Amino acid sequence: MQNIEVCLTPELLHLTSLEEKVVVVADILRASSCMVTAIAHGVEKIIPVAKIEECRALQMQGFLAAAERDGKKIQGFDLDNSPFSYMQPSLAGKTIAITTTNGTQAIAMSKNAHQVIIGAFLNKTAIVKHILSQNRDVVIVCAGWKGKVNLEDTLFAGAVLTAVMGHFHFENDAALLAYCTYQYSKHDLLVLLANSSHFHRLNKLGHSEDIFFCLSEDKYDVIPALYDNVLMKLQP
Amino acid sequence: MQNIEVCLTPELLHLTSLEEKVVVVADILRASSCMVTAIAHGVEKIIPVAKIEECRALQMQGFLAAAERDGKKIQGFDLDNSPFSYMQPSLAGKTIAITTTNGTQAIAMSKNAHQVIIGAFLNKTAIVKHILSQNRDVVIVCAGWKGKVNLEDTLFAGAVLTAVMGHFHFENDAALLAYCTYQYSKHDLLVLLANSSHFHRLNKLGHSEDIFFCLSEDKYDVIPALYDNVLMKLQP
Repeated sequence: MQNIEVCLTPELLHLTSLEEKVVVVADILRASSCMVTAIAHGVEKIIPVAKIEECRALQMQGFLAAAERDGKKIQGFDLDNSPFSYMQPSLAGKTIAITTTNGTQAIAMSKNAHQVIIGAFLNKTAIVKHILSQNRDVVIVCAGWKGKVNLEDTLFAGAVLTAVMGHFHFENDAALLAYCTYQYSKHDLLVLLANSSHFHRLNKLGHSEDIFFCLSEDKYDVIPALYDNVLMKLQP
Repeated sequence: MQNIEVCLTPELLHLTSLEEKVVVVADILRASSCMVTAIAHGVEKIIPVAKIEECRALQMQGFLAAAERDGKKIQGFDLDNSPFSYMQPSLAGKTIAITTTNGTQAIAMSKNAHQVIIGAFLNKTAIVKHILSQNRDVVIVCAGWKGKVNLEDTLFAGAVLTAVMGHFHFENDAALLAYCTYQYSKHDLLVLLANSSHFHRLNKLGHSEDIFFCLSEDKYDVIPALYDNVLMKLQP
């Protein structure tokens, strides 16, 4: 039986070996939800970059570019960090450079893995099916918030663990925390999330529709996967 | 209303300000449980040190000394890291230097707080009463395991949060994780703990009696508190 473990924040990633493993990066509110939505709506490539300057440089090369910090779109960029922005038919076939507060850093820090894929509630079952089909250890990397753990990414980890229970060995205690947190609140995630830090932050900024959408399960059957530092639809 | 937050591992402590706050350090298996037991049985002073060499130097100065790494007593020291070792009447009035794998590092890293106190299930209600009586923000620092989060310290944090619910504002998402984990498993902590990493480690080393003892609630009504880098019984 393979192992599955959870890294509750990229700040703890140096304590976990990623070599030969499949890494699922989750930044539920909202980077990974946006990436899944974008790929599902026909965006061909997403270039995730950690820094705003890198994103701007790609924009100057002619790519569409999306930059967000602290829940807000940065002036001068083409797109924000709302999943609804990535549903436009005009984006089909396009390449978009993206930088966000937490998600794109988590992706950058996971590059040494055998495979990096992007998970969200929106494609949860696709993620579950994929990791069950690989004969490899798995690490779910929660993007967190500026180094701290956050609730929504942990809940996603717990939801995946619940779905693969019995098929993987839970490698670390962080997996137990994520599993218990999800079990305790799964019948009404929103009630618990309403107490979380990022819910308040996004709600204040008027992003409540995004929150509801990002908690919807299995809207899409696609997985963004990293090929040479570029996210594309995972090929079977 | 004051804030209470949880730091799931000392590795994340640099993200939290401790200034003017009361810090509760928890290393349930077994450092903080030993310290509570020792003070309850009349040990006058405990000198917590991060490094084995410091502990040996204090031993050479004539103090009793306890050193543990990876669950095992280090050769040449007087005491190990089992709470039962600290119940001997001969230790009353004595000063003991202690270094452990995680707990004493967490104490060393918490020194900038207004007050550092030592919490365990063994003195849970004493801790709860104390933090409710102070008009200060509180941080529960889980000692974890070599930088990683662990289950038993998180469960203790969740138990304290449950007891103070409504009297403190939950400051961060880590507190929500600890609260949910405890709520999900509170009716049988041992069932969940049996899946945890450190349970297996200690059980293999023959420390199962220690585990049961360290999960007992409110055996003692004392709190070790740090005064000038030395732990002594908290004075009212």
